[in-house]
This record gives sequence, structure tokens and C-alpha cells, in this order.
Amino acid sequence: MLLQEIPKKEDIISAEKRIHDYVHRTPVFTSTTLNEILGVNVYFKCENLQKVGAFKMRGASNAILSLTKAQLKKGVATHSSGNHAQAVALAAKLSKIPAYIVMPQNAPEVKVEAVRRYGAEVIYCDSTLNAREETLKDVVAKTGATFIHPYDNYDVIAGQATCAKEMIEDTDHLKAIYAPIGGGGLMAGTLLSSQYFGHKIPVIGAEPEGADDAYRSWKAGKIIPMEFPDTIADGLRTSLGERNFPIIQEHIEDIITVSDQEIIEAMRLIFNYLKLVVEPSGAVPFASMIKSKERYKGHKVGVILCGGNVDLKRLPF
Amino acid sequence: MLLQEIPKKEDIISAEKRIHDYVHRTPVFTSTTLNEILGVNVYFKCENLQKVGAFKMRGASNAILSLTKAQLKKGVATHSSGNHAQAVALAAKLSKIPAYIVMPQNAPEVKVEAVRRYGAEVIYCDSTLNAREETLKDVVAKTGATFIHPYDNYDVIAGQATCAKEMIEDTDHLKAIYAPIGGGGLMAGTLLSSQYFGHKIPVIGAEPEGADDAYRSWKAGKIIPMEFPDTIADGLRTSLGERNFPIIQEHIEDIITVSDQEIIEAMRLIFNYLKLVVEPSGAVPFASMIKSKERYKGHKVGVILCGGNVDLKRLPF
Repeated sequence: MLLQEIPKKEDIISAEKRIHDYVHRTPVFTSTTLNEILGVNVYFKCENLQKVGAFKMRGASNAILSLTKAQLKKGVATHSSGNHAQAVALAAKLSKIPAYIVMPQNAPEVKVEAVRRYGAEVIYCDSTLNAREETLKDVVAKTGATFIHPYDNYDVIAGQATCAKEMIEDTDHLKAIYAPIGGGGLMAGTLLSSQYFGHKIPVIGAEPEGADDAYRSWKAGKIIPMEFPDTIADGLRTSLGERNFPIIQEHIEDIITVSDQEIIEAMRLIFNYLKLVVEPSGAVPFASMIKSKERYKGHKVGVILCGGNVDLKRLPF
Repeated sequence: MLLQEIPKKEDIISAEKRIHDYVHRTPVFTSTTLNEILGVNVYFKCENLQKVGAFKMRGASNAILSLTKAQLKKGVATHSSGNHAQAVALAAKLSKIPAYIVMPQNAPEVKVEAVRRYGAEVIYCDSTLNAREETLKDVVAKTGATFIHPYDNYDVIAGQATCAKEMIEDTDHLKAIYAPIGGGGLMAGTLLSSQYFGHKIPVIGAEPEGADDAYRSWKAGKIIPMEFPDTIADGLRTSLGERNFPIIQEHIEDIITVSDQEIIEAMRLIFNYLKLVVEPSGAVPFASMIKSKERYKGHKVGVILCGGNVDLKRLPF
């Protein structure tokens, strides 16, 4: 049964059980040297080590595993050129159901290949949002597949919430959790897990300056979509979803925006000291943490390293 | 008490207890996608996630913690511009004793800084091996410090052996273990742990074609030093040690040499699929494994990812 309202505590616990065999319980790493440099003890939740290389596997798995038998039979569909596409493809493969992924003709060959390797059918379209949505509509009409939205979907939010739930269980005394905001799926889930499982640990949103719609929406009290995002953090260029914004509005502690330069420096530190490969979007929460490090001097904070799918030929250093 | 002969089973067990608080028990990772691509199930022992970013912390810690009180008081010394220097510096810092590190004037600033950050005293010298050894002799004469050799030292070998011991304990049914050969410290330790704790799992040596002295020495039955090493794998340019060679001669299954191109491709796969930062030397065992993958088709093998200290400005992709 698909969720019709904001996930409750039980919904997240159920999601965790449901996706248990589909995802990794990712490790939490810390670096003594990095902590000494920053003066803050930072615990990194390594979702770059998650299946498909990003937290997206949690939400996609939960949404797919919540479908009815009749729905499962007809398969799932989505439009994405990013980590969500791979996550839907892999979760569908593990569930032995068809997946239809609408991708722009100009999507990087490596991403198309990754989706195909998981056995999904790729349907090309023009690269405008309109073309994507129309093509998806056609696919759904023709196949009867269920559309799995990348973030504006309560089952996806419940799945993403399991990430912060695990981090809270595997650490002690966190004074704050830093998580990214793109469409708001991971952020909404993180906020809910903080409320339900984390004694309301303050959650700080991290956003690129060049895609700061969440910051502006939060200040304005209404969704202000991002028209022309311009940031190296390609995973965070999307605008907030309707189901995500109210959760963010109610619970978020603060939103800290960072420049591309700050994102690149955070990436560099993660490569250097944690020896982990992280994509630009995955380094945004750490960049926000560094920018606000005086707030938590001498304390412990959690930072979600949300993804590691970076094109090695285009590393910014 | 320092070891005077090849470490016995009990010596390695003692080493593991001795260094317990100085090192991480590093995780063993595997990648479903990579395993599908290769047709072999590869278990990576992640020593790039070890303290100082390399297995060297194990041997240096064991050697230092085996010194007498009188020796400890006078500190330790070594000459190295690589991971062993950082390992000696950090292990000395944790033991609250002085460390003197002889480094060539042309050593990368970042490596000098890392050693200084751990509180060691850096003594510069010319970049020839002769100058290093002379300078070290002076330092030892002046300070009374104990020289910790990077590999030609039984206590160092016993420390490095704990890496394979952990990997054997944390996996099942490995058909082979791939480990690198530089001076032979890690290789000798790996061979001993396979004998004592691994039911004699075959151990395969991995070496760059441009520094194949172990391969040639093994074939010749005597040490043939490497005169002009030429490989991207800077950590494996050293020649075999006298204490290391007999252990290798007695127990090694095979030695597989790889080209720089093969090393770079192995690095790329590790970055891409494991999301781990690995230095060129650290990818050499995996490159050898790929080259010989037909031998273990459908089986499990262990591969030691021995270090992650790569200059991000000089990544080969």
C-alpha cells in the first residue's frame, strides 16, 4: 500500500525492514586528522558506498516494494539521468519486474550503460523537462507501469529516512546533522528520522548557491522553483517537491548555501583524508558544515555523504 | 624485545594485541557490479582506510611498541619520503617519544607537512640513497634513536602480517590472496599469516613491470636489486630486503607483473566501483588479479588495497 500522507514513525521502521535485503547499512567514518584541522568531530554517513553509489537506492527500493502484486507485474517507470534512474533500475531488477527509464538523448553514455546493465529499458527523449514528462506519460499509458517520482513521493521519503535513522543509531551525542537539499527527498526523510529516532537533533540543510531554491522558498514561506540552476553539484539542481516542502518548513533548523569553490574544497578534503570518492553534490553537506564550524566547536556532528557517482575524467582537481 | 628471527605464529598474535589501539581493523569491501564484470568475487582489504592511509602503520607501531623503555626514551628514526615516514611519526607521537625522519630535500611539501603534523622532526638531506643513509647514521649517532627499517625488520614484518590475518578472519573460502611486493614487508607478513592462520591459502605477489626485482630475484634464487625503477607505483620502487626474500622464496605461489597502463585501469575501477581513493601502488595487486582472473573464475579471492596516499593533482585520469 502506498503512503498517502507524511510517513509516521512506524512507516519508517517498516520501510527499513522492507528494504533490508536491497540496501547496505553503510558505515559511518571519521578522520582524526580532519577533526583536528576543523576542531569539530565529524561523522560521515557513507552513502557513496550504498548500492548504485547513492542513497537513492533506499527510496526507490521502498517505493517499489510497497507496490501491489498487480502493480508490480506492470513494472515501474521514471525519468532521470541521475542516481535515481540507476536506483529504480536495480530495485526493479532485484524485484524481477520491468523498469522503463526515460532519459534525455544527451545523457552521458556511462549513465545510460549503468541503467542498461541493471536490465532496464531506456527510452530516449529531448532534453527539456516537458519532453521528459510527455515521454514518461506515453510510457506509463502504454505499459501501465507505476511512476516512481524521485522525491515528491511519501514512500520514497520513508525510504530515504532510513539513512539518518541508521546514522543516529550508529553514533552518540550528535549536536547536528547536515544533509543536502535537492528535491527534498533525503532532507524530508532526515528531518522525520531526527524527530522520531533522534530526540529532534537539529538538522541543517546544505544547498549550492547556484541552486538555492530551498533557501529562498524557506525564507519566503512558499515554493519558489529554481529556473536556471548553475552549480557543479549536478544532483542538487532540482526544485523542491510539494510533499517535501511542508516537512522542511516545519522541522529544519537552518539552511546554509555554499559556493562551487567551497564544494570543491570539501570534495578535496574528503578524497584526501577519508580516501573516499564523492560526487560534488555529495560534498555539499560537508561544505556547509565547514562554513558553520564555529557553531559546533569541540562537539560531534553528522554529515551525510550522499553519493559517489562522479565522472573521473571531470574531477575538479 | 626485538625479534631476531622469522616471526612465529605467537609473534603475530602478540603483535596484533600490541598494536590494537594504534591501528584500525580495516573493513573488507566487495562490489557486486565489479564481481559481475570480472567473473570473480573479489574481497578488498581496505588499508587505504588505515591510519596514515596505508598498512605501514601496522609495522611501524609494532616495531616501536616492541622497544625497551630505555630505547623508547631516545626515540626512533627512519629515512623515507613515503608512507613509512608518516607511520613512524604517528606511532611515535602516540607513544609520546621523539621521531627523527630523514627526508630528501625534493620530497613533496605535502608529505613533509604530514610528518610534521604528527610532531616528528624532519631532517633534510640530498636525494641519493647514500646521502639518506649517511644522514640517518648521523642522526642515530647524535640522538641514540633506534632506526626503524621500513621492511627489513622482523618486528615490522610481524606488524604487517596482522593485515592478512584480519582479512582471513573476516572472509571465507578465499582461493588466493593478492598482495604487493616492494621491499617485501607486507608480502612476508602476508605469507606468514597465510601459513599460520589461513590453511596456507596461495599468496600471489603483485609487482610493477618497471620495478620487477622480486620477480627476477625469485626466478634467479638470489636478490637482484632494482637499479633504475620506472613505474607510476612509487611505493613499490624499492628493492627486496634480506630478511624478506627467504620468506618469499619459501612460500610464494606466483608473482605477476603489470604495466603502468594496467595499474591505472585497476585504479580507475577501484575509484569507480568501490568509491575508494587508492594510490597507484595500492592498485597493483588488483591489476595482477585482473590479469590472472581466469585462474579463479567463479571463486573468491582477497586483494590488499595497501594505500590511498595519492596526490590529487596528479591522478592519472
